[in-house]
Amino acid sequence: MEELEYAEEGRTELSQLGEFALIDRITQGFAPRSKSTIKGIGDDCAVIGNSRQKLLLTTDTMAEGVNFDMMYTPLKHLGYKAVARSLSNVAAMNGRPLQILVSIAVSNRYSVEAIEQIYEGVRRCCDRYDVDLVGGDTTSSRSGLVITVTTVGMAEEEKLTYRSGAHLHDLICCTGDLGSAYAGLLVLEREKVTFKADPTFQPDLDGYDYVLERYLKPEPRLDIINRLRENEIVPTSMIDVSDGLASELLHICKESNCGCDIYEERLPIDYQTTRVCSEMSNNMLPISNALNGGEDYELLFTIAQSDYEKTKTIEGVHIIGHITEAASKARLITPQNTAIDLVAQGWVAKDDK
Amino acid sequence: MEELEYAEEGRTELSQLGEFALIDRITQGFAPRSKSTIKGIGDDCAVIGNSRQKLLLTTDTMAEGVNFDMMYTPLKHLGYKAVARSLSNVAAMNGRPLQILVSIAVSNRYSVEAIEQIYEGVRRCCDRYDVDLVGGDTTSSRSGLVITVTTVGMAEEEKLTYRSGAHLHDLICCTGDLGSAYAGLLVLEREKVTFKADPTFQPDLDGYDYVLERYLKPEPRLDIINRLRENEIVPTSMIDVSDGLASELLHICKESNCGCDIYEERLPIDYQTTRVCSEMSNNMLPISNALNGGEDYELLFTIAQSDYEKTKTIEGVHIIGHITEAASKARLITPQNTAIDLVAQGWVAKDDK
Repeated sequence: MEELEYAEEGRTELSQLGEFALIDRITQGFAPRSKSTIKGIGDDCAVIGNSRQKLLLTTDTMAEGVNFDMMYTPLKHLGYKAVARSLSNVAAMNGRPLQILVSIAVSNRYSVEAIEQIYEGVRRCCDRYDVDLVGGDTTSSRSGLVITVTTVGMAEEEKLTYRSGAHLHDLICCTGDLGSAYAGLLVLEREKVTFKADPTFQPDLDGYDYVLERYLKPEPRLDIINRLRENEIVPTSMIDVSDGLASELLHICKESNCGCDIYEERLPIDYQTTRVCSEMSNNMLPISNALNGGEDYELLFTIAQSDYEKTKTIEGVHIIGHITEAASKARLITPQNTAIDLVAQGWVAKDDK
Repeated sequence: MEELEYAEEGRTELSQLGEFALIDRITQGFAPRSKSTIKGIGDDCAVIGNSRQKLLLTTDTMAEGVNFDMMYTPLKHLGYKAVARSLSNVAAMNGRPLQILVSIAVSNRYSVEAIEQIYEGVRRCCDRYDVDLVGGDTTSSRSGLVITVTTVGMAEEEKLTYRSGAHLHDLICCTGDLGSAYAGLLVLEREKVTFKADPTFQPDLDGYDYVLERYLKPEPRLDIINRLRENEIVPTSMIDVSDGLASELLHICKESNCGCDIYEERLPIDYQTTRVCSEMSNNMLPISNALNGGEDYELLFTIAQSDYEKTKTIEGVHIIGHITEAASKARLITPQNTAIDLVAQGWVAKDDK
């Protein structure tokens, strides 16, 4: 906090505020006017349109040195991931992505071939999820690479899942496993430190393939959206896990005006994630990785209890807890039956100093 | 071209290729699949949807040090301009903008108050053009500020104006005046150089107010779109002037498979623009400013000759030439009746060295 002493008068540092408070501050005074704006800021996508088929809109930015490190990020993967995380937001509304726009600001450190690699990754993700690239922008940048993907999707009005629809006693579900993307990042950062100390060092990434792929080339869970549809399940609320399970649960609790209990032993954690945690010098707990790691791009959703039987048959869906009343907090229940209050994450601007 | 000697094998420098060739290369292999994708890459907006009301989508990025210089760009103006240039793309399709998304990557050099200023500019432009901010993203960046605006608009199918609709003998029109934004930039750059040499220097910007406003706070010509509608004129083709008149004319000629003649004495140039040009040490010609300056965000469009009487009554619309046959070039005809072939611009990545 020392830098505060040097702050200008009336200057609030980004590091004091953090992402969520910043968004709250800058989005004041933007009440929607158009009657076609159904949902503006505050969910995974904006919802637009006057007909039953609603349009979904979402935009996401990745900046070099913040969201990715060029030292260990293959450019194809970068393009793929930039699209995948945007599509994940459409999945989180229970929608279907249709079109994307890609804007890129790039310095001349990057060759034309490097940019083509990024777009090759974009193309592969478009191919896999049957999405059209319909536009974008390229601009020169003084330093580094910034890539912004905007996705347009569709969903029927009655199938839309907002963050705000969870009800008392609803069951809380998550897909896949949690914390593995962050475990992959930990491995890459460890190898980078070793490589910097000894440039002849050859990183050995054997046995980490799953967590590395989770970090470098995540998949949006549109397969789960299809399974839910086939089983005629409409979640009562949904969000994708980009900032970590704890943050996402708190979003749902805040927007749905409820509390929640999730059970530690029910959280799905891959054995590679557990292994990476045990290797870390600070003996990181796999559970804190799962709660706060982020970038999993799994889906977190709530269902009515009446959908329990149908939901439990869907592969890759885990029931991890339930919604509690408005006066309650968002809590983790340990195997010893201790309740721990969950705390939000989200990025905090790092100091250049 | 010296740096080419040091280029890696198989490495093509961005500076060798330029913007338009880069876009051509990276957008190969992205043929639209969805039947709702009516127009993908290659116009001012993508066009989407199966009903008569088409959706328009456009995205634009501004990067610090490339598209704006923080030394002389008021943050409110920056936010306003980022939105205005995106809305201009919707105007260029003869559409109406409805919603925007704003993504921002920002380093911690910027205070929270600075970011609020940017969003205050965004809000003012939204207010003026009755557009909703419905989403966005904020991310930390290692260096500088990158702002991406995506706009959603609407247009009736039969009123859409592509770049490709110009026909032989159509009249070429442009709005407002040309080259004034670039003249504003020249003034700002001149004052910056003087200030750097002598930091006690107080810039005197009296008498440059029009060109400065043109550069710092442009307006999308949605007023002209309304006038065209009221007069039941649907241009045969349209584009907005962001890279300079010459580039935009070449886009129309290429997409419409035609040539064009424009007449030097018909190009609208403001007296402040002429004054700035005369003050420059290299005795810049106002006409080259008008052709290549860029950032005017005026509309360039073609009309059928049958719409001439209706069009000439619209204030701010100038008829500057006509479309010629496919085998012809895009030419500027001087008052001495000399024909000069027009040459495309667009950005070229600058070298950091």
